[in-house]
Amino acid sequence: MKYAACIEYNGTAYYGWQRLSHGPSVQGEVEKALSSVANHAIDLTCSGRTDSGVHGIGQIVHFESDAVRTEKAWIMGTNTNLPDDIALRWIQPVDDEFHARFAALSRRYRYIILNQPTRPALLDKKVCWFRYHLDENAMQDAASKLLGENDFSSFRAAGCQAKHAMRELQEITVTRDHRYIYVDIVANAFLHHMVRNIVGSLFLVGTGDKSPQWFTELLEIKDRTQAGITAPACGLYFVSVKYPERFNLPEVASPPFYGL
Amino acid sequence: MKYAACIEYNGTAYYGWQRLSHGPSVQGEVEKALSSVANHAIDLTCSGRTDSGVHGIGQIVHFESDAVRTEKAWIMGTNTNLPDDIALRWIQPVDDEFHARFAALSRRYRYIILNQPTRPALLDKKVCWFRYHLDENAMQDAASKLLGENDFSSFRAAGCQAKHAMRELQEITVTRDHRYIYVDIVANAFLHHMVRNIVGSLFLVGTGDKSPQWFTELLEIKDRTQAGITAPACGLYFVSVKYPERFNLPEVASPPFYGL
Repeated sequence: MKYAACIEYNGTAYYGWQRLSHGPSVQGEVEKALSSVANHAIDLTCSGRTDSGVHGIGQIVHFESDAVRTEKAWIMGTNTNLPDDIALRWIQPVDDEFHARFAALSRRYRYIILNQPTRPALLDKKVCWFRYHLDENAMQDAASKLLGENDFSSFRAAGCQAKHAMRELQEITVTRDHRYIYVDIVANAFLHHMVRNIVGSLFLVGTGDKSPQWFTELLEIKDRTQAGITAPACGLYFVSVKYPERFNLPEVASPPFYGL
Repeated sequence: MKYAACIEYNGTAYYGWQRLSHGPSVQGEVEKALSSVANHAIDLTCSGRTDSGVHGIGQIVHFESDAVRTEKAWIMGTNTNLPDDIALRWIQPVDDEFHARFAALSRRYRYIILNQPTRPALLDKKVCWFRYHLDENAMQDAASKLLGENDFSSFRAAGCQAKHAMRELQEITVTRDHRYIYVDIVANAFLHHMVRNIVGSLFLVGTGDKSPQWFTELLEIKDRTQAGITAPACGLYFVSVKYPERFNLPEVASPPFYGL
């Protein structure tokens, strides 16, 4: 039997999603907890790996198990066995054709910037603090240049293992809510560090160091060294994944926001 | 020279506000950081102590110092010396008559309940998780019975050192925003555990175990053993303090909210 499940996690304490031999990973913790409920080893496939310190709201996974358990038993048993900073949101049997990674139509990320002179305390490691005023309109203007199918080589990490850098950016918005700036990005798929590299360059536009037009040049130049820094992991949330309706998955997670 | 300052903190890692010899406290950390900027020992007076695990958004303190420092030097120096889960929000010189505790006209607290079947992950230790559905209208109805000047003995911790249990409750609202329930309480002053004991009893009304009318009986009976449990510390935020306008303090902090 194949199952799909939704995982929420605070990435702060982990080396990232992927299971590792030398440190704690979200995948490792979820596999351990599910295996203990199933009473056999479980191997997870996720919709998209996240880096160390990146948070997950609606990470989708699939796995196979012959264990006979109710939905409630899976959820309560797994959450009891998981650390406090990881939780199973829902789980349900899925068609054998479902694949968390290959069946995904698009992924949604949100990057949260706290834009105020003093650093956060309660939201430490949950937002990226930027002390100088950012012009969100200029940032939106720059971001819009990336829409559509483009070669994102300028925003691709050196170690990225993807075969090519063409991705279809379906949505990118920069909105301010008082002291918070939210960067929302939806694409069919993402390159390694792509969201964080886009946000790192948006900072330079927000401060006025670069013009929005610079983003058009960055797309053309296809050179990572010409773009901005990689923005810190702590501001990034993997929000949700869209799958074909025929799989009948529960409603996707909403982008997170804060008010404090 | 007398100064007033505003402190934000995540109470999770601390034994509470008050300086202690046997464990970390918010007061201890803030005094250490301010002292290192002032170059002399600083002794803080706060507007209201918080317990272990309770968070602060707008805790107000005052202290005296002859050190000559700009506002920016105080803020940046102190925040550099503070741990990541505590931050100085603002600081300003105040009239000698100002007293963080005795000049306060009222205090505002917010209690945040995450009311959903599965436990939180990203908001672990930032909200109180309650898995069974709560009826926020019944809770509001019960809460309203507490408005005005009353004897809050039924909601007072055994170890409370206050001279009497009369307090003036100026505002109490219970509002739902999707999966979150916010309990907002304003009073001239609070007894030890008063907010958490009120919320603990509100749980029993929210589940239907008790009627709203029970709150009127609790006020009359003046017996802590008849009321509900003390709700967990992690859901409680000390939001702000109101002072006479003549002290000209910056605008008070807003109640925190979450959406994820």
